Amino acid sequence: MTGSNVQQMTSASPYEEIYDPIRPELQAVILNLASLAQEQGSHEGAMAERLEHVLSAPGKRLRPAITLLASRLWRNPSELDVMMGTAVELLHIATLIHDDTVDAADTRRGRETASNLWGRNVAVLLGDYVFAAAARFVCDTNSVRLVRRFSETIMELARGELNELLDGQDSHVTRESYYQRIYDKTASLFMTASESGAVLGSAHESEIQLLRNYGYKLGMAYQVLDDVLDYNSTSEELGKPAGNDLKEGVLTLPAVMLIEAEPESNAVFDWFKAARNSRDDGPVEIDMDALVTALKAVRASGFIDESREVALGWIDEARESLSGLPQTEERAALEKLADLTGARRS
Amino acid sequence: MTGSNVQQMTSASPYEEIYDPIRPELQAVILNLASLAQEQGSHEGAMAERLEHVLSAPGKRLRPAITLLASRLWRNPSELDVMMGTAVELLHIATLIHDDTVDAADTRRGRETASNLWGRNVAVLLGDYVFAAAARFVCDTNSVRLVRRFSETIMELARGELNELLDGQDSHVTRESYYQRIYDKTASLFMTASESGAVLGSAHESEIQLLRNYGYKLGMAYQVLDDVLDYNSTSEELGKPAGNDLKEGVLTLPAVMLIEAEPESNAVFDWFKAARNSRDDGPVEIDMDALVTALKAVRASGFIDESREVALGWIDEARESLSGLPQTEERAALEKLADLTGARRS
Repeated sequence: MTGSNVQQMTSASPYEEIYDPIRPELQAVILNLASLAQEQGSHEGAMAERLEHVLSAPGKRLRPAITLLASRLWRNPSELDVMMGTAVELLHIATLIHDDTVDAADTRRGRETASNLWGRNVAVLLGDYVFAAAARFVCDTNSVRLVRRFSETIMELARGELNELLDGQDSHVTRESYYQRIYDKTASLFMTASESGAVLGSAHESEIQLLRNYGYKLGMAYQVLDDVLDYNSTSEELGKPAGNDLKEGVLTLPAVMLIEAEPESNAVFDWFKAARNSRDDGPVEIDMDALVTALKAVRASGFIDESREVALGWIDEARESLSGLPQTEERAALEKLADLTGARRS
Repeated sequence: MTGSNVQQMTSASPYEEIYDPIRPELQAVILNLASLAQEQGSHEGAMAERLEHVLSAPGKRLRPAITLLASRLWRNPSELDVMMGTAVELLHIATLIHDDTVDAADTRRGRETASNLWGRNVAVLLGDYVFAAAARFVCDTNSVRLVRRFSETIMELARGELNELLDGQDSHVTRESYYQRIYDKTASLFMTASESGAVLGSAHESEIQLLRNYGYKLGMAYQVLDDVLDYNSTSEELGKPAGNDLKEGVLTLPAVMLIEAEPESNAVFDWFKAARNSRDDGPVEIDMDALVTALKAVRASGFIDESREVALGWIDEARESLSGLPQTEERAALEKLADLTGARRS
């Protein structure tokens, strides 16, 4: 992979300011990703090609950027943060591969998914390989603390996705279980990204905790805003509302709030009931009226804005966590990242 | 899980002598497996139930037994070998879950598979969870060396399965690539099991290498004998030969030897060609004549016996590796395990 490819992957985004203090290190991370495809010896290329495809997909590289910034904020940054940054990005990629397999997604960011290109079996095993490669990069930090945190993160990611799947069409989701799920599937890895950087930068334990809290709050906010966006987006065809999560039976914060406010009976319950009935009747046909009614009810409730407020509260807390840290360009970049996350529109 | 369950899982087998020196530790491993299902906090039980099912399946527990024996052969065994034994067994279980998902297997050892019971999506994510739990148990050894070896093992397992899948119906498999594949999918984990035990038992590096070689050779032999059994088994229905690997397009040692002996043209090539043609023609219909002809050719070639000889040579080498080690009951158990593996009939 050449320098210009690297450029291409991270430029043309509002994130330039965030990358500035760590550009060579982020480049090293991206080269590590690419090198993994060249690695597996005896096989003639079928596997290398497939790895290359999944590892070269463009991305914002937010998680490794957080690790690198959290490490280089300190006077004694360790070169090992590049290994850790590679690990967190690989873990993110492995999760996407398995998620796309589970969701039977055809494309992601305009590229065909691994499961769509080569079947779900290859995608499952490619994902396993990338998970393990991530774990091996963590080992290069020689820190049992980081390896343990990383293993816990993989468990949390799997648990989050599993519970989302098992909870599908289950109307008993509480705010508490929703928070647990978004911690598992998103905030856990953000937290690991920031905490590990601080550990590798030899920060004091109290400072590690501040950066850990930054990652946690940022990750929670990131996922809530993602879930809010799902309600606000509209698919163009037929002018119908999108609301894909609700359509798939996944309850996110706005709907959870609506259920809290009207626990006896509400349009979301009605939609789930209709969906269950149509499933029991044989071939699934979506009761579009019930879905649209539920979406309208959530939108009219004000809970979408209220959810955004929850997220923005976390963004403030993430920023607040940084206030006790040295005023370096890395800290400014992490603050900027919080601001951009709060302003997320896509 | 009660003591009698533990008993049930390991008794009524020719392996009693192997378990004898390490019975309490193996019991601790099995309890660790069971405890994992109780662990995941907020969720009301759907995930716990599913984990319980996959973790309570009976098994010979050969891999953790190897770790425990290789550790307790020495004067300073570490209690941490129970954690490592738990990790290697969990990794084995995770691999089985993903393999059954990939193969769309309905049952394993008479129990329904996770993918058959709850769908492939749940099975993929359950497997991920168990992989990560395995890695976390390795962290409890506080040994970066073992964590790194473990990560490499997961990569090798995934690569082995992936290459088997990608090589399907590919007649260019050489003896070298076959050996690489069975190292990846089987011997790697056996080697990690024995090596990690020796490391935790504070053996000298030269002794660690002997036990590592024991696990490697035992694992290679184990897989070749498994592949030989596939040729020798017969399915009762219609009195037809089984030969499931060849039917699935997977070349194992006897067929690889046949191809080496007749590289221009042979019945295996003919069968693969017939299988490719029928796939190209649309709905897959097996050309049973070509398959039976290929199976007969392999059986008539003498290469099944020759493959078994290769495996028995490795069994001897595995035993030989032990000859420089202290003559303890643990060493005797490892020798016995080599003998039983060599005598494998099912």
